[in-house]
Amino acid sequence: MQNFTYKDFGVDIDSGNAFVERLKPLVASTFSPLVLGGLGGFSGCFELPKGYQNPVLCAATDGVGSKLTLAITHNRLENIGIDLVAMCVNDLICDFATPLVFLDYYAMNALDIEKSLVILQGITQGCKLAGCALIGGESAEMPSVYGKGDFDLAGFSIGVAEKADMLKRESVKDGDIILAFQSSGFHSNGYSLIRGIIESKKLDLSQVFDSKDSKNANMTLLDGLMKPTRIYTNIFAKFKDKFKALAHITGGGLRENLVRVLPQNTQAVIESKAIKVPKIIEFFLPFVDSKEAFRVFNMGVGLCVIVDKSEVDSIVKNSDAYAIGRIESSQTKQVILR
Amino acid sequence: MQNFTYKDFGVDIDSGNAFVERLKPLVASTFSPLVLGGLGGFSGCFELPKGYQNPVLCAATDGVGSKLTLAITHNRLENIGIDLVAMCVNDLICDFATPLVFLDYYAMNALDIEKSLVILQGITQGCKLAGCALIGGESAEMPSVYGKGDFDLAGFSIGVAEKADMLKRESVKDGDIILAFQSSGFHSNGYSLIRGIIESKKLDLSQVFDSKDSKNANMTLLDGLMKPTRIYTNIFAKFKDKFKALAHITGGGLRENLVRVLPQNTQAVIESKAIKVPKIIEFFLPFVDSKEAFRVFNMGVGLCVIVDKSEVDSIVKNSDAYAIGRIESSQTKQVILR
Repeated sequence: MQNFTYKDFGVDIDSGNAFVERLKPLVASTFSPLVLGGLGGFSGCFELPKGYQNPVLCAATDGVGSKLTLAITHNRLENIGIDLVAMCVNDLICDFATPLVFLDYYAMNALDIEKSLVILQGITQGCKLAGCALIGGESAEMPSVYGKGDFDLAGFSIGVAEKADMLKRESVKDGDIILAFQSSGFHSNGYSLIRGIIESKKLDLSQVFDSKDSKNANMTLLDGLMKPTRIYTNIFAKFKDKFKALAHITGGGLRENLVRVLPQNTQAVIESKAIKVPKIIEFFLPFVDSKEAFRVFNMGVGLCVIVDKSEVDSIVKNSDAYAIGRIESSQTKQVILR
Repeated sequence: MQNFTYKDFGVDIDSGNAFVERLKPLVASTFSPLVLGGLGGFSGCFELPKGYQNPVLCAATDGVGSKLTLAITHNRLENIGIDLVAMCVNDLICDFATPLVFLDYYAMNALDIEKSLVILQGITQGCKLAGCALIGGESAEMPSVYGKGDFDLAGFSIGVAEKADMLKRESVKDGDIILAFQSSGFHSNGYSLIRGIIESKKLDLSQVFDSKDSKNANMTLLDGLMKPTRIYTNIFAKFKDKFKALAHITGGGLRENLVRVLPQNTQAVIESKAIKVPKIIEFFLPFVDSKEAFRVFNMGVGLCVIVDKSEVDSIVKNSDAYAIGRIESSQTKQVILR
């Protein structure tokens, strides 16, 4: 009778262990004094920072969606980990939570150690940008689910908020101003649509899309599409005392995300024309119904915040923020794109 | 010029929103008073339970591996969510953490609301068994990564531990006893190997594998393979004061998991013959090299704990635990299977 080993069916425990060994220094480079590295054994362990009066823990999970397929197809894996971290921590700050730790789930057809290290390096880079420690993860070989070369990533992040900060959202009122912080492009949303357009219009991704703008000079469509999602944790750290509410603009666009932070009896009125649409998004707009574009893409606004009008000047002066609208009294809680 | 919408390329925001609406009552049924349901907006928010002197937060992530493919192929999706929760919370308790909350990442080809509700119902059932609240999740349609009908699940759980408990592991010493708590079968490990054997040996999964054992009478191979992973949080809650160390036996088996909790200058000596191997695992042993079997399967021991010998009787009398080995002094930290 024939005897089988795990390796016969595509799962290699030894090479998994070798990968983990090479990962250790990368992971350790993200640690803060809050991480209890030596204590755990089966999980990632950490302490809360001191000084919170009523600490609330916030947790978020997300993936990078179909941007992954573009990254895999064109072997542009170096920044996809930044996207993964960004999608989670940008949600946390919207509940006034400072991100503390991150964990990743990485499932694949078969482990390619060099490629996997590139991906994990991106994740650790994202963690450093967000100021959080990578305290755990799972790497799984699942040849029955993932095709050759394919994989998926899920991220999980935990942060801590002061309870009183979370209640500031309720103070949003008529006359408050809506500020936009710019996105780096599509971030990690809308890529099934973008990929569909690329395929059906047979777009050449090596074409330069924005030769006039010096910042993106000589940038190809592929470069523009693979730009990592901007991480807004530093914006949050700098201005959180001035913010009444924050909204991370992802799937659903401005309308569906901003409405989540409005209190009863208010509406947000946004001047669509005020929005600075990045060239990479502009390039794709002719192919998409304009209402749909506002629903699927961030349109250049990666993070939206609501502030008292007295705070506008100091924020705009010290960041890339600009006003795109205002809060009005209204019986219906809604976001109006004008 | 043709205009595209997201739905044209397989992502349907409207049906996603409908799914979330139907999910809400399921999710709310897992909530504890620690969950701040009304406060968050972008993340899941909760408070720590009172009474911890030095609370340590522990976080774990895991998936269910290739057991998923078996569940998909045979449309047995109802318990896979229990597996997902189990894989995470059983890790947390090994660091003496009581699980508090859970989040899921669910990525798929296309949303089938009825099937998805079956899966999510399993996750909420797992959360209830583990005593933790489902405070967040992400459902993503990724037709470019997942084949028709395919999907993947990742779980993420956070618990809280008393720091002093985490240090008990260091008190493990010569003469301590290793107790085994039974597994329900393969749990969620080794399924690539199991599936490989099923295929190459053309095994009929509708055959009854254990007609003599009354508990599993008339249970088919498929039933045995799809039994959900046992959740040990109630065992932990009941006996944690008596435990010095716990090891969740997953990939790597007894040897690679138990060694993680041994202090320096100790070794664990396990009497292989003492282990009660469940019939469903026994059925597959003729096809697997025996050393490999102990490395890939739990062999019937889902959770291993180390206790002072004075505690053995009271634990064995009040649970399904039984002794499988002991701790000895040793210059080399190792697990010996005898």
